[in-house]
Amino acid sequence: MPSYRAPVKDTLFVLDAIVDLQGHAGLPGFAAATPDTVAAILEEAAKFCEEVLAPLNLSGDIEGCTRHDDGSVTTPAGFKAAYAQFVEAGWGTLMADAEYGGQGLPYVIGMVMQEFLSSANMAFSMYPGLNDGAQAAIEAVGSAEQKHKYLPKMVTGHWTGTMNLTEPHCGTDLGLIRTRAEPQADGTHKLTGTKIFISAGEHDLNDNIIHLVLAKTTGAPDNVKGISLFIVPKFIVNDDGSLGARNAVKCGSIEHKMGIHGNATCVMNYDGATGYLVGEEHKGLRAMFIMMNAARLGVGIQGLAQGELAYQNAVAYAKDRIQGRALTGAADPAAKADPIIVHADVRRMLMNGRAFNEGARALALWGALQVDLSHKAATPQARQQADDLISLLTPVIKGYFTDKGYEIATESQQVYGGHGYIREWGMEQFVRDARIAQIYEGTNGIQAMDLVGRKLGQNGGRGTQAWLALLNGAIADSKRDERLGFITAPLEKAVGDLQASTMWLLQNGMANPDNAGAGATAYLHMMGIVALGHMWLLMAKASFAALDAGSDDADFHNAKLITARYYAARNFADVAALRAKLEAGAETMMALPVAAF
Amino acid sequence: MPSYRAPVKDTLFVLDAIVDLQGHAGLPGFAAATPDTVAAILEEAAKFCEEVLAPLNLSGDIEGCTRHDDGSVTTPAGFKAAYAQFVEAGWGTLMADAEYGGQGLPYVIGMVMQEFLSSANMAFSMYPGLNDGAQAAIEAVGSAEQKHKYLPKMVTGHWTGTMNLTEPHCGTDLGLIRTRAEPQADGTHKLTGTKIFISAGEHDLNDNIIHLVLAKTTGAPDNVKGISLFIVPKFIVNDDGSLGARNAVKCGSIEHKMGIHGNATCVMNYDGATGYLVGEEHKGLRAMFIMMNAARLGVGIQGLAQGELAYQNAVAYAKDRIQGRALTGAADPAAKADPIIVHADVRRMLMNGRAFNEGARALALWGALQVDLSHKAATPQARQQADDLISLLTPVIKGYFTDKGYEIATESQQVYGGHGYIREWGMEQFVRDARIAQIYEGTNGIQAMDLVGRKLGQNGGRGTQAWLALLNGAIADSKRDERLGFITAPLEKAVGDLQASTMWLLQNGMANPDNAGAGATAYLHMMGIVALGHMWLLMAKASFAALDAGSDDADFHNAKLITARYYAARNFADVAALRAKLEAGAETMMALPVAAF
Repeated sequence: MPSYRAPVKDTLFVLDAIVDLQGHAGLPGFAAATPDTVAAILEEAAKFCEEVLAPLNLSGDIEGCTRHDDGSVTTPAGFKAAYAQFVEAGWGTLMADAEYGGQGLPYVIGMVMQEFLSSANMAFSMYPGLNDGAQAAIEAVGSAEQKHKYLPKMVTGHWTGTMNLTEPHCGTDLGLIRTRAEPQADGTHKLTGTKIFISAGEHDLNDNIIHLVLAKTTGAPDNVKGISLFIVPKFIVNDDGSLGARNAVKCGSIEHKMGIHGNATCVMNYDGATGYLVGEEHKGLRAMFIMMNAARLGVGIQGLAQGELAYQNAVAYAKDRIQGRALTGAADPAAKADPIIVHADVRRMLMNGRAFNEGARALALWGALQVDLSHKAATPQARQQADDLISLLTPVIKGYFTDKGYEIATESQQVYGGHGYIREWGMEQFVRDARIAQIYEGTNGIQAMDLVGRKLGQNGGRGTQAWLALLNGAIADSKRDERLGFITAPLEKAVGDLQASTMWLLQNGMANPDNAGAGATAYLHMMGIVALGHMWLLMAKASFAALDAGSDDADFHNAKLITARYYAARNFADVAALRAKLEAGAETMMALPVAAF
Repeated sequence: MPSYRAPVKDTLFVLDAIVDLQGHAGLPGFAAATPDTVAAILEEAAKFCEEVLAPLNLSGDIEGCTRHDDGSVTTPAGFKAAYAQFVEAGWGTLMADAEYGGQGLPYVIGMVMQEFLSSANMAFSMYPGLNDGAQAAIEAVGSAEQKHKYLPKMVTGHWTGTMNLTEPHCGTDLGLIRTRAEPQADGTHKLTGTKIFISAGEHDLNDNIIHLVLAKTTGAPDNVKGISLFIVPKFIVNDDGSLGARNAVKCGSIEHKMGIHGNATCVMNYDGATGYLVGEEHKGLRAMFIMMNAARLGVGIQGLAQGELAYQNAVAYAKDRIQGRALTGAADPAAKADPIIVHADVRRMLMNGRAFNEGARALALWGALQVDLSHKAATPQARQQADDLISLLTPVIKGYFTDKGYEIATESQQVYGGHGYIREWGMEQFVRDARIAQIYEGTNGIQAMDLVGRKLGQNGGRGTQAWLALLNGAIADSKRDERLGFITAPLEKAVGDLQASTMWLLQNGMANPDNAGAGATAYLHMMGIVALGHMWLLMAKASFAALDAGSDDADFHNAKLITARYYAARNFADVAALRAKLEAGAETMMALPVAAF
C-alpha cells in the first residue's frame, strides 16, 4: 500500500524563505496568517490528508464511480464520509471571502492545501477543487444576488460547482460550441446541449451542484463572441435558500478514463434546463477565463502533488528493497544485498524528483503570493506587477509542472522495477492520475501558445521584463556570495539563452507565426527550468543564511543545499538544447505535406 | 476505435537501403528471402496483424485474463481463435531451424514480424514472443533429446514457452533466488518455489506450456554461481511425444497490471514439480542470458511498435479533428475551423513520432542483421564483429527504444486532447502497454549499467571501436555529398561528444564507479540519438540516390528526406546536454545521506 506524508516542514520553510509570509503581515488577510496559526493549519491539514484521504486513494481508483439508470452517480466507498469531514472541518472556507463565510486567509495557504489534498487523493480533491473555480467566476462576474444566493453554500462545500465548457466536437476552440440558451419571459434561459468531460458533474457527496455552463444565446454570433456564461443548478435554489425543483440537467454517462477514477467525469445533458446568466451576455469567455486561470494554477499543483507522492513512495521502496551491491563495495556486508538506494541510477531518479518537487513547491507558493499581491498589495503598481508576473507564469506552472510531474511519477515508478507496474503498489495509479494534468484546462501545447503568443508580449512585454529583472537582480545579488557560484553561474547562462530565445521568437515569430508555434513548448520548458532555478538560488541563499545564523536544523539546510547543487548540475544544460531546438524553427516541422503523413 | 496499418512500405525500404537483404543472398537462409518472397510474407503478415489481431487489442485490454479456482486461465475473447490462426499460418516458424520444422528465414524477417505483431496487439504478441526466447535457450544449451522432444511443437506454437526468473524478493539480483531443485534417482529434479511476473505463465491458447525455470540445486552455492536452468512442462511429455501427467506447477494468481491486460502475468507455484536440467548444472544464468539477449531486442521492438501504433492514430486524429485556425491564416476557409495538423505544436508531436519510428525501425533491422551475421557471416572475423556490434547495441535498443516508445505514445495521446484520456480511443492503452517495456527484461537502468559497465569496455572496447569506426566511416563518406551536410555536420559533432563522454567515463568511472552509474542512463540516450542519427544519414543517402536515379516514388523519398532533416534539426542538441549531465558526475547525486531522504 502506498503512503503519504504531507511535506509540512518544507512548506513552512518556503513560506518563510521564499514567500516571506510574515513580511506581508500588513496586507488584508495576512495578519491572521501568523506563523503559529499557519503551522497549526498545516498540521491539521496534513493529518486530514494523511489519515482520511490518502487511505481512500487506491481503493477509490479500483472501485471508481458508478452511474445508475436514473443518472445519479455513486462515488467510491468512503468518499462521502470523507467529504462530510472536509465540510465539517471547514477546509473549503480557508481562502474564501469573509462576506460569504470564508476565513479570508491568503491564497498562498489555499495553494498549500491544494497540494496536500491532491497528493493524498487527486480524484477526491477535484470535487472541492472544481468548486473553487466556480466560486471564483461567480465572485468575479456574478450579481450581488447571485453571490449571496450561491457562494455561502459553495464556500462551505454544502454545494459544489462545476465548469461546463467542452462539447464532443470542441474543446480548445470554444467558438464552435453548440449549446443553446433561449431567453424566457422571466429573465431566465432554457439551456439545451451536451457537455463532455465534466469533472464532478454528478455525485452523491452533497446536496446540490452548481453548474457553470457556456452557451450561445438565441441570435448570438456563432463564434467566441457569442458565448455567455450561465449558472445551472442541479436543484433550483429558491429565494429563501431552500432547494426547489430538480433541473433538466442529467449525467448521461461516465467516461472510462486512464486515471482519476474516483472522480466522476460526466457527459452532461442539458434538456431545456433553467439557467441564469452570469455577468454580461456574450462575455462568457472572459468570465470563464477567470475560472480558468485559477484552475490552471491548481492543475499545475496537481503535477507537483503527484510528483511528490510518487517520490515519497519511491524513496521508501529504495530504502527497503534489497537487491545487488553498491558499485563502490557492499554498503551492508552483513546482509545478502544492499538496499537499492545505494545505486547511482536509482539516486538519479530520486534526486530528480526531490529537486523538482522542492523547486516547484517554492515557485507555486511564490506564484500564489503574486495572486494575493495582485489583489491586496498596497500600491496599484505593486498590484499590477504581481498580476503581470502571475499572468506570465501561469502557463509555465500549468505546463511545466504537469509535464515534469508525469515524468517524476514515471521515474519513481521505475524505481520499483516490475512491482511498479502492479496495481497494489500504487505507483502506476500516480502515473495515470498525473497524466490528465497535462491535458485538461488547456493542453500543455495550448499553455505554450498562450505563453509565447500572448503572455510574452502582453502590455509591451511588461511582465516578461519585470520577471527578467527579478532574475537578473537575484543573480547580481548572489554574485556577492561565492558559495552560490554553483548555481549563479549556470543560471546566468540559462537566462542568457532564454533572453536570446525571446529575441529569436520576437524576430522570427513575426516573419512566420509558425516559428512561434514550433518553439512554444521548448520555450515553456526553458522558462520552467529557469524559474525553478531562480527558486533554488533563493532557497540556497536562505539555507546558507540559516546555517550562518547557527540554525538548529543544520541537517535540513544541508540537504537543501545538496539538492540545490544537484538541480544546478543536472538541469541547466537542457536550456541550451531547448534553445537550439527552438531556433531550428518551423521549417522542417511544417514541410511534410499533410497527405504524406 | 483505434486502427493499425503495418508499415510494409517503409520496412521494405529499410530491408533494401539499410539491411541490403539481397546483398547477403549468399548466406544460409537469406537465399530464400528474395524480394518477392519477403514482400509476400510482409503483406500476409500485415493482413493477419491488421485484420485479426488489431481488432482484439482494445477489447482484450478491457476484458483482461481470468484465473479460475483450479488455476486455469482464460484469455480474452477472440485470443484463442486468433492464436489458432497464428499456428495454422505457421507464423511461429519463420526464423526457426529447419531441423525442428522451421522455415530458417533470416532473423531480420522475424524482427519485422515482431514489430507488426506487437503494434497490432502487444498483449497477444507476448504469447508467441516468450515462446521464441524459450526456444532459443533450449536450442543453445539443451541436449539433442530435449531439442527433438520440445522444439518442433514449440516452433509451430502448439506448445508455448515461458521464462521463470523473478521471485517476490528478487528480480535483478538473481543470486538471491530461493526456488530449490532436488535431484531424483531417475535423473530428474523436483522444483519447489514461487516465481512472479511470469508472462504467459498460464493460458488456454494451446496444449502445453514449457516453463524454463531458474532454481538452485541441493547443495549449490547460494549465489549466482549456484543457479541452474530447468525445463518444467505443464504436462509431462512422454517419450513418444504424447502428453502425460499434469505437473505440480500452477498459476496461483494473475497480477493486476497497468497494461498488457490481455497477457496473463502469473504468480507460478512450483510444488515439487518435475523438472529437467537444461545445460550444465550451475550454469543456468548463462543459459538464461541467451534467452534474455534475444528477449531484450524483442522488448526494444515493443517500444518502437507502440510508438508506431500511437503515431498512426495521432496522425489520423490530427487530420480529422477540426479545431482553431492555422496561425498563418485559415487553411480551410470554407470550414468552421482547420484540422489540428495545421498547428506547429501538433506537427512537433507527430514529427517526433515519425522521426523516431522510422529511425528506430532502421536500427532494429540493422541490429537484427548483425544477429544473423553473427551466426552466418562467411568469416570468423565478420561473425565476431557482428556479434560485438549487437552486444554493444542490445542495451541501447532495449533502453532507448522503450524510453522513446513511451514518450512517443504519450505525445501521440496528447494530440487527442481530452479524448486521449478516454479508454474508447485506445491511446491511453498504448501508453500503459508501452510502459512495461521500460521495466521488464532488465529495467532501463540495468540496461544502462550493462552498456557502461560491461559492453563499452568488453574485449578491450572492441565493439565500441568497431561501431565508432562505422560511424566515422559513414560521416567521412557522406561529406562528399554536400546535400547531406544538414545531418553529417551535427552527427559528427554528436559523435565527438559521445567520444568525449566515453573517455570521461573511462577515466572517472575507474576513479569512482558511481561516476559510471551516475552517467549511465545519459550515455545510453546519447548512444541512442547517435545510432538513430547514423541510420537517418544512411536513409537520407539512399533516398537521394533513389531520387537521382529517377525513382517513381519521389513522394516517399522526399518525405524521408524531410523527416531526416527534422531528426537532424531537433535531436542532436540533446547529446551535448546529456554530455554535460554525464560529466557532472556522481558527487551531487550521492551526497545526500540516506537518512535525509
